[in-house]
Amino acid sequence: MSDFIVSQNPKVETLYIPVFDDVKAAHQRIKPYIHRTPVLTSSYFNQLTGAELFFKCENFQKAGVFKARGASNAVFGLSDEQAKKGVATHSSGNHGLSLSYAAGRRGIKATVIMPHTAPEAKKEAVRAYGGEVIECEPSTAAREATLEALIEKTGADFVHPYNDHRVIAGQATCSLELVDEVGSLDAVVAPIGGGGMISGTCLTLSNISLGTKIYAAEPKNADDAYRSFHAGHIIEDDSPNTIADGLKVSLRPRTWHFVSKYVDEVLLASEEEIINAMYLTWQRMKIVIEPSCAVPLAVILKNKKLFEGRRVGVIITGGNVDLKKLPWMNP
Amino acid sequence: MSDFIVSQNPKVETLYIPVFDDVKAAHQRIKPYIHRTPVLTSSYFNQLTGAELFFKCENFQKAGVFKARGASNAVFGLSDEQAKKGVATHSSGNHGLSLSYAAGRRGIKATVIMPHTAPEAKKEAVRAYGGEVIECEPSTAAREATLEALIEKTGADFVHPYNDHRVIAGQATCSLELVDEVGSLDAVVAPIGGGGMISGTCLTLSNISLGTKIYAAEPKNADDAYRSFHAGHIIEDDSPNTIADGLKVSLRPRTWHFVSKYVDEVLLASEEEIINAMYLTWQRMKIVIEPSCAVPLAVILKNKKLFEGRRVGVIITGGNVDLKKLPWMNP
Repeated sequence: MSDFIVSQNPKVETLYIPVFDDVKAAHQRIKPYIHRTPVLTSSYFNQLTGAELFFKCENFQKAGVFKARGASNAVFGLSDEQAKKGVATHSSGNHGLSLSYAAGRRGIKATVIMPHTAPEAKKEAVRAYGGEVIECEPSTAAREATLEALIEKTGADFVHPYNDHRVIAGQATCSLELVDEVGSLDAVVAPIGGGGMISGTCLTLSNISLGTKIYAAEPKNADDAYRSFHAGHIIEDDSPNTIADGLKVSLRPRTWHFVSKYVDEVLLASEEEIINAMYLTWQRMKIVIEPSCAVPLAVILKNKKLFEGRRVGVIITGGNVDLKKLPWMNP
Repeated sequence: MSDFIVSQNPKVETLYIPVFDDVKAAHQRIKPYIHRTPVLTSSYFNQLTGAELFFKCENFQKAGVFKARGASNAVFGLSDEQAKKGVATHSSGNHGLSLSYAAGRRGIKATVIMPHTAPEAKKEAVRAYGGEVIECEPSTAAREATLEALIEKTGADFVHPYNDHRVIAGQATCSLELVDEVGSLDAVVAPIGGGGMISGTCLTLSNISLGTKIYAAEPKNADDAYRSFHAGHIIEDDSPNTIADGLKVSLRPRTWHFVSKYVDEVLLASEEEIINAMYLTWQRMKIVIEPSCAVPLAVILKNKKLFEGRRVGVIITGGNVDLKKLPWMNP
């Protein structure tokens, strides 16, 4: 049942690729610590798009984001011995928050490496969940050095935000619940950044819903996944500028595996289209969503022909947004 | 089973007071046209208050507000002959919107009398649901004269925003669903303005859940219901100034009947407390709510001792808010 990418280069680690049994195990493992989030529908958006949309609302998830799934799967899968040493990650956003949440539920330590330039509110949010913040210089080198030093010292388990089989298997439980709740779908649209959510979506649907098309929705201003998809290899983009701040990171080998194998197309949306979809969602559905998860609706509105008359799942990934700095406010 | 307030003054109409059979009939009648809205819980707010809170989310209701219930009950209870003549009301807010929605579903005409000073967005919202807006001078006299002239001319049925037994019976279906979903409750907290929602809540709970305490939540800046409750008669307040714009109107005989008979206490919240509760709800529950329906949470946070250790229903009445003018934004 297992699936490995075995590198020919002895310096490159062999990647364990999670399989559907891992997803089922993850769902059992994390159930006590996550919400089975509701699936909302909207006659307004159905009329506007001509499709039948099913919004899986992970903005109502613990920590306000789907990443609580993957983080909980990693944390609760640790042996007691390893758990005692804690977990660590680098993240200035939702993954750090989610890992702190999960570690708090298990009663173990989570350390999050964040650039000292990260907003104070984000550091506070991690601390509110019981996580410890270690600040570093705002560079990849500084982040990695700080993390390595910490792991060396404490033996903490590193939980990567998305290039981690436990995390991908955890995120995969989202579409498992979606299909269980609404039945067969013609398509599912999820945002793509590092690829954790879309990989989990691929993992589940390729096992239980083969006929479902999988679309990844990406900001045009951070289109590295689009370019990777069409080039056939990972293209990294170091500093994209988009309001969808959860989608700035690049694919990594484990997520590239799923994206290259199972995604049908990567669809792009401009900043204006993303903000418009976000505003409409707040206004019409009365839910608070992040810019990142307005991207799927934005691409559906832009590509109506693709979705007309179809049953379409839309992953609303999270709702962690600074209410005092909304994109339709004057700065 | 009926209940009348018979006036000794021959000039005053005899008021039909709706009974529980009317609520059951209303629920059957309106089911195809309204959402059975979800009940959300929040471990954050449970921890913050020490109570177990059940949020009945009418912000997800058709037209974004519980008033779709009462309006649908009135519209779908009309004879075909009466329906042909249409319905009319005065409202610059949610009731006009809801009546337009319900009339649109039945395919009949709704006319809404609005002061010409009402925001253009509100007029547009009524028109978007198919309602016709007639503008008048911004005074009670002008509003009533315009309405009377319209009814004289068209024979339209007047559906008062809350002093109407059909409307109260419709709003009563909200707590019927709440109790059906979560079981027995120690208390329910609902906002009070004209008293339509709180009256419906009283009507249902006094029939199916006698032990449940009923608290009305009111802005301190519009405390006419509080003063009425303690004086023992209706005190009107013509122009209160509060951010909770759905709660500016005063009680009328049908709603006073329920408030005076069944409400346990009217609890007050300041503007700052209302805005704080609204902000916290958006931030933590990821739902868009109006200022008016932040008042219940505000009074619970202010009177923790009353609710600690109790199972408490909280009516989230609506989510129609101007996203570009939020109270925590700079003007």
